[in-house]
Amino acid sequence: MRLYDYLPSGNGYKVRLLLSQLGIRFTLVEKDIFRGETRTSEFLAVNPNGRIPVLELDDGRRLAESDAILFYLADGTRFLPDDRFARAEVLQWMFFEQYSHEPYVAVARRIRHMERRPVPAELMDRGHQALRVMAGRLADRRFFVADRYSIADIALYAYTHVADEGGFELGPYPAVRAWLARVAAEPAHVPITRRDFP
Amino acid sequence: MRLYDYLPSGNGYKVRLLLSQLGIRFTLVEKDIFRGETRTSEFLAVNPNGRIPVLELDDGRRLAESDAILFYLADGTRFLPDDRFARAEVLQWMFFEQYSHEPYVAVARRIRHMERRPVPAELMDRGHQALRVMAGRLADRRFFVADRYSIADIALYAYTHVADEGGFELGPYPAVRAWLARVAAEPAHVPITRRDFP
Repeated sequence: MRLYDYLPSGNGYKVRLLLSQLGIRFTLVEKDIFRGETRTSEFLAVNPNGRIPVLELDDGRRLAESDAILFYLADGTRFLPDDRFARAEVLQWMFFEQYSHEPYVAVARRIRHMERRPVPAELMDRGHQALRVMAGRLADRRFFVADRYSIADIALYAYTHVADEGGFELGPYPAVRAWLARVAAEPAHVPITRRDFP
Repeated sequence: MRLYDYLPSGNGYKVRLLLSQLGIRFTLVEKDIFRGETRTSEFLAVNPNGRIPVLELDDGRRLAESDAILFYLADGTRFLPDDRFARAEVLQWMFFEQYSHEPYVAVARRIRHMERRPVPAELMDRGHQALRVMAGRLADRRFFVADRYSIADIALYAYTHVADEGGFELGPYPAVRAWLARVAAEPAHVPITRRDFP
């Protein structure tokens, strides 16, 4: 398999983390989003939406969207429940992540940590709203769905564990911090690639 | 089943359309998002993220996020392929919808049609970018995945077919217009609830 990716990306990290935990070897093709490498005509032929990550199978078929890639890779493994309702709950949390979490928690990190600009207050408010929803879910649960580690946890871990880089203080969310530690303690866990930006 | 919904919502419409095509009867519980009815403590007990639609099963279990609800309802039916890769492709297009399409095409409709305010140019640009990606996919395909009507089409139809209400002219996208007509011609198709706003 071949993974088109940008190493500091949380969306890319989700896929790298699951591939590690599944023991799947892959070839990394780095595309620097800050140098426009995902907007070239060459890359737009790989993903017309101009985004990493993209997973390319050995037969050439390609899949975009980090959480769709997670679902594909996890299908039939211990990282995705078999039960129909539990699978839908996993998807609920992954759609929550992409719609109500990533556009604030990840975008704040990009603005503050990578572009060194101030983060608008409304964006921080929305990020805290997402963190409160997570804290509520985790108040009496070890993991997001079916009391076990799944791709729902991987999807939400990716940007939450580096939320401090976006200026989010996790002190008020002890249930979230305890869950982050549980995720990091899973076998074959790998860290995100951290980079210093100018 | 019980569906918490707001009738002009495209996200809610996705679920109503699939329920109709599956022949499933349900009780509608209307929540007017413009009157704050999804932010009451009563509704936050139903969905802590404060959004419709929410599907409540007869045993009381609840599911949020329109595209997760679609996946749950379609699982095992003709509206979702069995093949593992095709299922992941369906999810790819649903995540595309929620991340790269809905925040522009649906939000422009809300701003222009419901709130009667001007839509920022950058938001329109992003919406056209999503429409171009759709047009490219549909250039040589009848439907988004596996050459058949699926929940990927339902997810993308919901806000695309009312994109004009957000100020998007679909003239430059003939492949998208032809696909809209194919979706509308599917058996048991039902229209979105249109409302006039002040």
